[in-house]
Amino acid sequence: MKKYGEFVFSPKTVAVIGASTREHTVGRSIFTNILLSGYTGIVYPVNPKARGIMGVRAYRSVWDIPGEVDLAVIIVPNTAVAQVLEECGEKGVKEAVIITAGFKEIGEKGKELEKAVIEAAKKHSITFVGPNCLGVINTDPQIRLNATFAVSCPKPGNIAFISQSGALGVAALEYAYANNIGLSKFVSMGNKADLNENDMLEIIKDDPKTDVILLYLEDLSEPKRFIELAREITIKRKPILAIKSGRTIEGAKAASSHTGALASSDEVYDSLFHQCGVLRVETFEEMFDYARAFANQPLPKGNKIAIVTNAGGPGIMATDACVRYGLQLSSFDTRTTETLKAGLPVTANINNPIDVIGDAGEDRYEVALNSCLADENVEGVIVISTLQAMTSIKEISSVIGDITAKHQIPVLVCYMGVTDISDALNILDEKHIPHYKFPEAAARAMASMAEYSLWLTRKRTEVKVFTDVDKAKVEEILTQAKMEKRIFLPEPLSHEILKAYGFPMIESAVAKSEEECLQHAQEIGYPVVLKIVSPDVIHKVDVGGVKTNIKDETELKDAYKKVLESVKQAKPEARISGLFIQKMAAKGKETIIGMHKDNLFGNLLMFGLGGIYVEILKDVTFRIAPVRELGAYRMIEEIRSHKILEGFRGERPSDIASIAECLQRLSQLVTDFPQIEELDINPLLVFGQGEGAKVIDARILICKD
Amino acid sequence: MKKYGEFVFSPKTVAVIGASTREHTVGRSIFTNILLSGYTGIVYPVNPKARGIMGVRAYRSVWDIPGEVDLAVIIVPNTAVAQVLEECGEKGVKEAVIITAGFKEIGEKGKELEKAVIEAAKKHSITFVGPNCLGVINTDPQIRLNATFAVSCPKPGNIAFISQSGALGVAALEYAYANNIGLSKFVSMGNKADLNENDMLEIIKDDPKTDVILLYLEDLSEPKRFIELAREITIKRKPILAIKSGRTIEGAKAASSHTGALASSDEVYDSLFHQCGVLRVETFEEMFDYARAFANQPLPKGNKIAIVTNAGGPGIMATDACVRYGLQLSSFDTRTTETLKAGLPVTANINNPIDVIGDAGEDRYEVALNSCLADENVEGVIVISTLQAMTSIKEISSVIGDITAKHQIPVLVCYMGVTDISDALNILDEKHIPHYKFPEAAARAMASMAEYSLWLTRKRTEVKVFTDVDKAKVEEILTQAKMEKRIFLPEPLSHEILKAYGFPMIESAVAKSEEECLQHAQEIGYPVVLKIVSPDVIHKVDVGGVKTNIKDETELKDAYKKVLESVKQAKPEARISGLFIQKMAAKGKETIIGMHKDNLFGNLLMFGLGGIYVEILKDVTFRIAPVRELGAYRMIEEIRSHKILEGFRGERPSDIASIAECLQRLSQLVTDFPQIEELDINPLLVFGQGEGAKVIDARILICKD
Repeated sequence: MKKYGEFVFSPKTVAVIGASTREHTVGRSIFTNILLSGYTGIVYPVNPKARGIMGVRAYRSVWDIPGEVDLAVIIVPNTAVAQVLEECGEKGVKEAVIITAGFKEIGEKGKELEKAVIEAAKKHSITFVGPNCLGVINTDPQIRLNATFAVSCPKPGNIAFISQSGALGVAALEYAYANNIGLSKFVSMGNKADLNENDMLEIIKDDPKTDVILLYLEDLSEPKRFIELAREITIKRKPILAIKSGRTIEGAKAASSHTGALASSDEVYDSLFHQCGVLRVETFEEMFDYARAFANQPLPKGNKIAIVTNAGGPGIMATDACVRYGLQLSSFDTRTTETLKAGLPVTANINNPIDVIGDAGEDRYEVALNSCLADENVEGVIVISTLQAMTSIKEISSVIGDITAKHQIPVLVCYMGVTDISDALNILDEKHIPHYKFPEAAARAMASMAEYSLWLTRKRTEVKVFTDVDKAKVEEILTQAKMEKRIFLPEPLSHEILKAYGFPMIESAVAKSEEECLQHAQEIGYPVVLKIVSPDVIHKVDVGGVKTNIKDETELKDAYKKVLESVKQAKPEARISGLFIQKMAAKGKETIIGMHKDNLFGNLLMFGLGGIYVEILKDVTFRIAPVRELGAYRMIEEIRSHKILEGFRGERPSDIASIAECLQRLSQLVTDFPQIEELDINPLLVFGQGEGAKVIDARILICKD
Repeated sequence: MKKYGEFVFSPKTVAVIGASTREHTVGRSIFTNILLSGYTGIVYPVNPKARGIMGVRAYRSVWDIPGEVDLAVIIVPNTAVAQVLEECGEKGVKEAVIITAGFKEIGEKGKELEKAVIEAAKKHSITFVGPNCLGVINTDPQIRLNATFAVSCPKPGNIAFISQSGALGVAALEYAYANNIGLSKFVSMGNKADLNENDMLEIIKDDPKTDVILLYLEDLSEPKRFIELAREITIKRKPILAIKSGRTIEGAKAASSHTGALASSDEVYDSLFHQCGVLRVETFEEMFDYARAFANQPLPKGNKIAIVTNAGGPGIMATDACVRYGLQLSSFDTRTTETLKAGLPVTANINNPIDVIGDAGEDRYEVALNSCLADENVEGVIVISTLQAMTSIKEISSVIGDITAKHQIPVLVCYMGVTDISDALNILDEKHIPHYKFPEAAARAMASMAEYSLWLTRKRTEVKVFTDVDKAKVEEILTQAKMEKRIFLPEPLSHEILKAYGFPMIESAVAKSEEECLQHAQEIGYPVVLKIVSPDVIHKVDVGGVKTNIKDETELKDAYKKVLESVKQAKPEARISGLFIQKMAAKGKETIIGMHKDNLFGNLLMFGLGGIYVEILKDVTFRIAPVRELGAYRMIEEIRSHKILEGFRGERPSDIASIAECLQRLSQLVTDFPQIEELDINPLLVFGQGEGAKVIDARILICKD
């Protein structure tokens, strides 16, 4: 069976439709690039007016090409693309790369043209990349296809680059070329009218030539599928590094504790990348710095790093950077210190960072590196050399390369100084030792590897399915509410739904009269809280519809009267459905858990601590439902103020397990019932470890349609 | 009068003592560099064994040199340096640069040698740089001195670089050279045995050739002088960019609210740099990226930026980076939009970021840039061009340069792609337009300029001197305490000291008997708090020595008994000096202010919110005393949780003015009385705006010596 998109990277025949004889045109550049890149298949230029292009016989149309055509690269004017696709379809062309721009990115007219393109492709089952893109590259020696109009093509390597932007794709190709970084595959996706990043990940995930995947994204086409796919890939030891640009710029947002209002899209992307092990980076330089480390060196087992330097200053800068990015400096064992002492001059520093002193030759680097790599406390090494008169940087490079090859511990190099050391750098490149101009860059790359290593060794859990839930009951309540065209569910119904899904609810009951109130309060036990229930009252406190800490019958009678009176006064037209009596909760920590249905992300779960933590510090985390068992715990750990839950100032730790369970139950509830638009439990009161939690207040909104 | 250190950069005669005929030696490199850099003075090589060096007549010793010698550059072995300085002294040499290493950095033996060097220099009043340094450079055409052994020497420019590390100095010189960045002066300070960063700042602060100062520091020799000097310089429109490395690596610190424990040295450096307008950077690349902007372009008046790009992706990345670094995207006025509409093709985006589309030539850049720069809402411009087939990057560079020169608005350029564009970059360099490889780098540099611009326009205040203080009273208490060899002052005395300095104290009194207790409570008014006073009890709560919320006489009698009993039981040997009665405070926000005497920084003031904000979130700020009037307000604004004080959830704002006054009074108190080692006011309870604050609890430690 044909794999979706496989011909994009590995066609046996390519037709370049719109290939041109004119220099400095895209149609000419692409054809030239394919021809000169040593493509192992057959390329046919298609141009109705030319006899041949660069000596290769041209065809008037795709029909005239003899035999099968796997891939059409299309560079004709935007208004002609749909028609060309029709012709391709009739010819039996399997897939296409549409380079042509002038589609949805230019407005209404373009949108229509793009629609026609999509329809033509669908009609003939043609899978395509683009439109409005730079093209594709496959450096595999079996293929050698460069179907882009970029000036530079990088050498073969084990890094794949998937870019949404063509301009940044060009920049990436040029950066890789200039820095001697090899790529396996490259694709610029343009408008993503058909193939998107998920399809590209599908194609590349099992590619034996690709060990590292780089993404430049401006949006995600299907976030949920992305999470699944990316998780699958990253767990399989293929790291994914992503730049996600196009952050939502929002003005000062009103203080609010609703999940919806807190979910500014950029923070959600952070959570989403965490959820699937994707390493988010901010800049191209960072991306390639990390990629070179991942592509060439083994992963560190942990975050304990040794630094070898021939000068103090850079050693300090490297140390700073290590600490800043979450690495630790290894403490050497006695054997290491002794070897260092024996092999290095007295003036050397034999503690970490090891200073082999300015006049060090390759012999001292050999001693230092051998000692470090033999030490069990060393999980990665950064080697620094500042170029000094006596330094023989070529020999040092050879020594580093040879020793590193004998161990399964990553070694990154930093040569400070940019005067001509290309010979030395070539040696490092040959021996797969990544090198950096500044110690921070090396430290950051190492930290990124350590972070990924942590992700790989993390315990994995599945999505837990709670069977003690009453689905029918919730279905009934929601159906009824729908019939009544409700948007906000009344509080007692919200509580019933949560109860049906096994949430720990504060004891409560609904009363229709004073007598019922007294009776329920008796059963529940004083002190209690009394709240108005009315479809017309959303903000109960504002109309005097809530009384707390009611200690006995007398107070309850009084509260009953007062609540009804003040609601009547504030909102005379409000229909009163009854009174909601809750047990007054014991003291606990206020947390908030919620769900907000996002247009793009779907069911977005949120967790945070109540009050100022959410409202001022915006200290919340997100996950896309369903959340896995340990994922729920990680949501809790990720907030900055999580130490408050671990117990501080001698307090007992809070019952974190209860929160995690509530988050998972919430995940299941909102997954089972897509008609829930928004759900906020605020507060979920959490007690000491082993004492559980209680839902005090809950608000459920259901979808309008 | 001779200015301290003036001959280091501008000698008329230089003696290179230890100049060598052997290639690849430091002694040879330095002499060669001076000779070949076109030094405008006279250089004499001193070497007892050589007849001449590189064709220049050598002298056996400094004595043999005819005429005056302003500067000696010394490269003899470490054991000979002191003797050479003696000779220099006798010859009348004014200043020296000691390149030789092997001093305090190598341990005990080196320390002794360094001591001897310092003594010899002092004896002959020779000011010197080093030892263990790379040397100095002055590119001023009047001088042209390169007295370093670095391989590369940058071209003349308006940036001075002061480095503590020689190795990083080399890296900086090479980076500047390779990136065509001009320097005015360079110095590597080595061990700072005599001249330190403050002296260098003194020398450079009025240098007409220097507009930007770069610092690489591992420590500060005299932080207080540094603050004064740096503030003076930055206010005079000379920006200072500093890397401060060598962060204190401290293990997990126990939760604590003492100023001392919170002042991990790195956070203090952050505060210190804030205090004097120094822009702290993390990496060399950042430093030079910013420096090129400062050195070549005017400052932006604000943070509203326009972006001009010929591709969407880089525009989005630039926008993201602008927002991330605190810039805003300008909203154009209608005239601008109209000019853009008229001058650009329909497909162009005429909102910010302006997209002139991939095939844009210099004409479109001209339209876009002219329109932006004429708009009052634009305070800086970032111009991006991705290199595309049709782009004529040289013409675009000329246009950008010419238009920019006509305005007082900074323009930074980013050309994405590294293929050969050196011609275009040379044009930009000639026209003083800084250029970057990635949009983030340009955005970050612009943000740094905007930050400095904000510093320049900040309102300045002086240190306020409170005259309503009773200095004699405090002197008396502290002298008495000293005589009694106390370290912790008893609480009533701490309160008396603060009262004498005008702090708003909660009403209190000391009682010796139950009767006195009752009497005082009567005067103060119930409810009250009762605390034990004993020189032997530091943690009063732990021994049951505190009772709060005492509502009437009966409760007070009871509390009196219980406090005395439980203290006696817990600590039978404790001497009881009396009972401390305080008014029970009204509800307010808990803040903490304190001072800790730091070995390096001196009197370090701290501010934070009480409770978890300090203990878990470590949300505190520091200043070195004395703090200026607005500086106190800024300490309060700088904490993350300051919004809590501004009023939230409809609460009244807190009385921030009272906190600021307390901080200033604290600053004056600890400056007046250096014998105070540590002072913590925890809490300083703050009430609503206009309602003031009250010191509830205070702890003062006095110095042991």
